This record gives sequence, C-alpha cells and structure tokens, in this order.
Amino acid sequence: MKEIVCLNGQFMPAAEAKVSIFDRGLIFADGIYDCCPVAAGRLINWPLNRARIKRSLQEIRLRVPDRFWTGLDEQVAEVVKLNDLREGYVYVQVTRGVGERVFTYDDNMTPTIVLSITRANIIKRGEAYRGIAVCSVEDLRWGRRDIKTTQLLYPVMAKMEAKSKGCQEAWLVSRGMVTEGASTNAYIVQRDGAIVTQPISREILGGCTRDALLSLCKSRGLKLDERAFSLEEALAAREAFITSALHFVTPVTSIDGQKVGDGQIGALTAELHEAFLESIGC
Amino acid sequence: MKEIVCLNGQFMPAAEAKVSIFDRGLIFADGIYDCCPVAAGRLINWPLNRARIKRSLQEIRLRVPDRFWTGLDEQVAEVVKLNDLREGYVYVQVTRGVGERVFTYDDNMTPTIVLSITRANIIKRGEAYRGIAVCSVEDLRWGRRDIKTTQLLYPVMAKMEAKSKGCQEAWLVSRGMVTEGASTNAYIVQRDGAIVTQPISREILGGCTRDALLSLCKSRGLKLDERAFSLEEALAAREAFITSALHFVTPVTSIDGQKVGDGQIGALTAELHEAFLESIGC
Repeated sequence: MKEIVCLNGQFMPAAEAKVSIFDRGLIFADGIYDCCPVAAGRLINWPLNRARIKRSLQEIRLRVPDRFWTGLDEQVAEVVKLNDLREGYVYVQVTRGVGERVFTYDDNMTPTIVLSITRANIIKRGEAYRGIAVCSVEDLRWGRRDIKTTQLLYPVMAKMEAKSKGCQEAWLVSRGMVTEGASTNAYIVQRDGAIVTQPISREILGGCTRDALLSLCKSRGLKLDERAFSLEEALAAREAFITSALHFVTPVTSIDGQKVGDGQIGALTAELHEAFLESIGC
Repeated sequence: MKEIVCLNGQFMPAAEAKVSIFDRGLIFADGIYDCCPVAAGRLINWPLNRARIKRSLQEIRLRVPDRFWTGLDEQVAEVVKLNDLREGYVYVQVTRGVGERVFTYDDNMTPTIVLSITRANIIKRGEAYRGIAVCSVEDLRWGRRDIKTTQLLYPVMAKMEAKSKGCQEAWLVSRGMVTEGASTNAYIVQRDGAIVTQPISREILGGCTRDALLSLCKSRGLKLDERAFSLEEALAAREAFITSALHFVTPVTSIDGQKVGDGQIGALTAELHEAFLESIGC
C-alpha cells in the first residue's frame, strides 16, 4: 500500500487515506464500486465502466453532482499516471457519505469517492494459459446482483469455499442453474459450438468484459445463446470459461473435480482469449 | 457526532475516528455489527447481544483472540460511561480488518473494532404509544439473514420505500410470507389471541428483543405460534407489532394503507409493551 490513491478528489499515499467510521459505506454497505482494467498503461473500455458506475448509482439512488463525471474521468487518468500503472486495474468506489447511523438518508449527503489501483498481471496471466478449476456453490446473494454494490460478503465466502477445495473460482448455482462466478461471468461452449451464457437480468452482473466479448463474438459470426444453463449442462459441455476485468477470457478446465471436455483448454476459448487481447490492442 | 467512540480499543472523539479505505468492511462488507439498548444508563440484555456477536463472527469465520471478549465487555461499559449515555444504544462493529483488495483472506488479519453510541428515546418512544404504519416490500435480501452483517443496503432501500409511502417500517415479503421488518422482527396476533412470528431460521435475524419477548410470553402463558405468516393473514389479524433494540414492542396499526384490526393499538400489544418495560426494570 505504497501507492497513491484519490480520496474525495485529493491524491495522497494509500496509508493516509481514511474515512469516518460513520461512512455509510462501512455501516450499511451503502455504496457501489467498479474496476477498470489497465494494460500497457492504458485504460481498457473505460466508457463501459463509467456507464456502469452511472447505472449503479442510479439504481441505489445515490445522486452525484454533474461535475462528478468530469472529475472522475480526470482522476481515473491521473491515478494511473501518478502510479505509473502499466498493468492491473483502477478501483472506483462511491458511498453515500458520512452521517448519523439512520437507515434512511437525505439526498443532500456528500458522497465519499475513492480511487485506488492494483498492479496485476492481466495480459499474460498464467491462469489464462493453464485454465482454472471451479466448484459449485449455492447462490445465496441478494436479488439485485445487477447492481455492483460493495455487498460482497457472499462472494468472499464462496471464494473461500473454492480456495478450500483447491479451486480458483466458485460458480454460483441457483435452482440448478449457474448464474455466474463469484466475481466473474460464466460461459460454456456446447458440443455444437454455441457459446452459452446467462442473459442480462437482475440475476447477474452485466460484466464490461462480457459486453466487449459478446460484441466480439457477434462480429466474428460465432453462435451465441444468451440463456441460463444448468450445472449438468456445464459438466457435459465441450469447453467452459469465465470473463472479468482481471481475467479477460480464462478457461475453466474442471468443475467440481470433473474435467470439462478433455480437461484441456478449449480451442474456441483460446481463440477468444487471443481475439480479446487483439481487440484491446495487446 | 460530538460523542466519544472506541476504535480498536482507543477512546477518541467521533470526528477523529477513521479507518483505512482498504478496510474490508468498506470494500467487501466483510463485517458484522450489533446494537445493544441502554435504558436508565444500563445496558439491556447485553449477554444476548454478546452471544449474537459471537455467533455472527463464527458464521463469517472471523476469528478474534480470546482477549477480544473481555476487552469488549469493558469497552461497551466504558463507552456508555464516558458518554454518560442514559438512553439509546451502543453500536458494536467488527470487520475483518485492512488488507489488499483480494476476496480471499488469511486468518491472521487484525479485525477493526468500532464502538459508538446513539442517544434515542426508547422507553417513552412515541411510536410505541401511537403505533406505526408499515408497507410490504419484496424481500430481496441474501439467504443468510440470520447473520447480522453490515450488508444493509436492501434494508436501506426498503426503509426509503416505506418513508416515501408515509410508513415507518417495511415488512419484507418472500413468496407471499412476511419474513420480518427491514430492521425489526414482525408479529401478528390472531383473532384467537395467538401470537404468530417467524421461527428462527436463515430467513430472519434472531432478534435479542424477540428472544426476550418470547421468554416473557411463555412465562405469562400466552399462546405462541412460531411459524411463517402471510401478508393476507397479517391484513386479517387482530393486532400486529414489531420488536427491535430500539422499538421494544411497537404496535403496527396499518399495513399497506389498510387498518390492522380497528386501526387502534392492540390490547395485547400494549400489555406486552408494558410487561417488556417492566421486565427490564423501566
């Protein structure tokens, strides 16, 4: 934590950045966040993240002044520059601000805005070339998973369960259907080559990488089927993979200890991974 | 916020109490809390809250050292004393502490422990004598409502919806059944005099006031039926009420704009309110 962060418009060393214990983000998880990948020192698809931040704020009725948006664009660019971030992601968090501990709020509160960076190997991330193991975990999250809020305790619990089983991600299952990963979107490739993934709804978070990848699939004329798929279908699939800001396109080679396909990285998955990197100029 | 709070064992003015922006409570809502009522300068049923804190920590696997418990007892008493708190509640929050933004955690993290107080009129709270209006809101919370975590955004949203309808509380409804209030437990009194409330399960938070009240009901030989009740049953009930650390026993006189019974405070509810105050020596 020697990095420079931005707290309410002020740049400072991470260790100095503190918020009140009465911040509603801390007391009520009354806030949203987003993560925008950075590769070769450039923000990747920032307009998609920016639009999602806007939507998240609207859905939880957290009003920000118009100047928030120009300020955010500048601060996101500046935090990358000040830290000389080449690869990783920018984390943006907006909470409803500091107040007495009362559930209801007034619209005149001053939001708390945090920007920080994480350095990570995302272009040549080993998992993209090795594949990952996932385990299924019951999806016990709330009913508005389409909003990117800081209510992440269940994903934390699911990731810990995955870790305890030697897996790198948990696939969340609701009524037999895979909704998504704990922090990623989930896909399978059927034996007929169709790529299947949950459609956008309140059941899943609309990933920015998901958006970008689906556009890419369409432009390449690949067969896409946006529908829920069951855990059984996933176990019978030819290939499986996940996407996220940090994972781009990462193959899943086993689910609950069972091989996906032949247990190797799927050909289409590998192709999508390369095509995605190419599409972002990496 | 001129009060004295306790942050990681240090007493300080509330305005000075700040936590890192990398606290997992802020980033992942990876923490739990509890509220213990104070009346006439005395903690009410603190052992019940203490036991619930212990359970909440266990359920999210947040390990605390043994000395945590003796420290907590002392700090809770001290924060009441230092603030000369006569009536209100003590808020206790424990998060998993400060670390890099990674979903998984190590067991050797140092938790962040916050104690603060809120002054409130709980003994002669007006609502207990006027009754409150509630509205029904779909219960979209996660599947572990039995853990008192800081993931409170949905209760915030539900309370705002209630407020917009001129109501003081939201009753959350899942598949037609009332689970509980956004921050309270929910009860109806049937025409035969039986008190009906959800049994303890993962669907609801086991309220300390609920515990104490049910013991009181049993000791008075009242008819208790711990089962789920529907919104329709509630609308047809003779009486309805809520309990919480802040509300004790507070009558509900209307649900979704329809009178409960004759729209007045129920006789049994009023009796329970008085009996509860008496049981805590107020």
